Amino acid sequence: MTERGSLIVLSGFSGVGKGTVLRLMMSRYDHYAYSVSATTRQPRAGEVDGRDYFFKSTEAFESMIERGELLEYARYVDHYYGTPRAYVRQQMESGRDVILEIEVQGALNIRRMVPDAVLIYMLPPDAATLAGRLRGRGTETDDVVRGRLKAAAGEARHIGDYDYVIVNDDAEQCAARLNGLIEAQRLRTARNLPFIKEIQEGLEREARDN
Amino acid sequence: MTERGSLIVLSGFSGVGKGTVLRLMMSRYDHYAYSVSATTRQPRAGEVDGRDYFFKSTEAFESMIERGELLEYARYVDHYYGTPRAYVRQQMESGRDVILEIEVQGALNIRRMVPDAVLIYMLPPDAATLAGRLRGRGTETDDVVRGRLKAAAGEARHIGDYDYVIVNDDAEQCAARLNGLIEAQRLRTARNLPFIKEIQEGLEREARDN
Repeated sequence: MTERGSLIVLSGFSGVGKGTVLRLMMSRYDHYAYSVSATTRQPRAGEVDGRDYFFKSTEAFESMIERGELLEYARYVDHYYGTPRAYVRQQMESGRDVILEIEVQGALNIRRMVPDAVLIYMLPPDAATLAGRLRGRGTETDDVVRGRLKAAAGEARHIGDYDYVIVNDDAEQCAARLNGLIEAQRLRTARNLPFIKEIQEGLEREARDN
Repeated sequence: MTERGSLIVLSGFSGVGKGTVLRLMMSRYDHYAYSVSATTRQPRAGEVDGRDYFFKSTEAFESMIERGELLEYARYVDHYYGTPRAYVRQQMESGRDVILEIEVQGALNIRRMVPDAVLIYMLPPDAATLAGRLRGRGTETDDVVRGRLKAAAGEARHIGDYDYVIVNDDAEQCAARLNGLIEAQRLRTARNLPFIKEIQEGLEREARDN
């Protein structure tokens, strides 16, 4: 069977609890690597290069873009953020399942670059639960809340492009189900063709030598 | 999320241990139904109609074929064997994952009839292990053993048409992995479109009413 890890892209509505579920899952199972992004913004206090981000100058980042060294990138305000291809590949080849937590457009870009990436979207148990989270502590104006709800409804139109959806009703259970889903990806036939060929050739050899 | 069960088609080399793994899995988890076949052969001592088989007259079986009531069927020697569509559908709608243990041609027929059926092929850890099983206790002639090995090598050419492969290195572990793989199938986006739509419309309603 394949020893190579999977590239997992996880998206989900703001407020759905992705961070909590991922932290639980990654603390419980040791076959994961969280993809470390590259950025041109300055490190904040306590941030470590290579752990929190790969910190790059704008010049260095732009030359990574030119050399195709990023799986995807985006510019927010004045800074670049992107996913270094080499880090992801190296983690997958060492057998780790790499988790990329990324928004919808980035996820669809990854799908084009890495066709066997697995796209998973995290859902709330129902719309009212998410709306409650987005309303927060009642300190936001109605306009702000309405904008968040509209943004979430708009994002929902893209969920059909994902491979799987997972409901976060309970963080512990969701982490266990997410892990089961990710482990199952290694069983895809397309990822085990060399092993299947080895079995087939082995059987032909056994028949010949019998 | 979908409450509907999956249709799981399990194939595997003769001697790979499908029966043992399925019995273990189905005794441990209660969300499975084993598909009961229809046949025109006579019941054997202890066999119960509707549990072991649906026993049918040739006339009744042929009229099931004509009315399209079988997902697939085949004739072996003098008798028909087939998979009744109504039983499978009813089990899936009651939320059970239906397991169909069937050979390669039947599996590919099911795929045409039920596009979202999930095809899984069980593999030995290596060719030598399977060859040892097929040689049996050394009481078969070399020709018989060679025939079995050739048949297995021929069957291996179709494994690429399956969705997943699973290695039976240890029956307990294989049963647990198979269960995880089957449970993950309910998370496929295509099977949850009504739920996704409900969330989207709920969010639009919340934005409007805010």
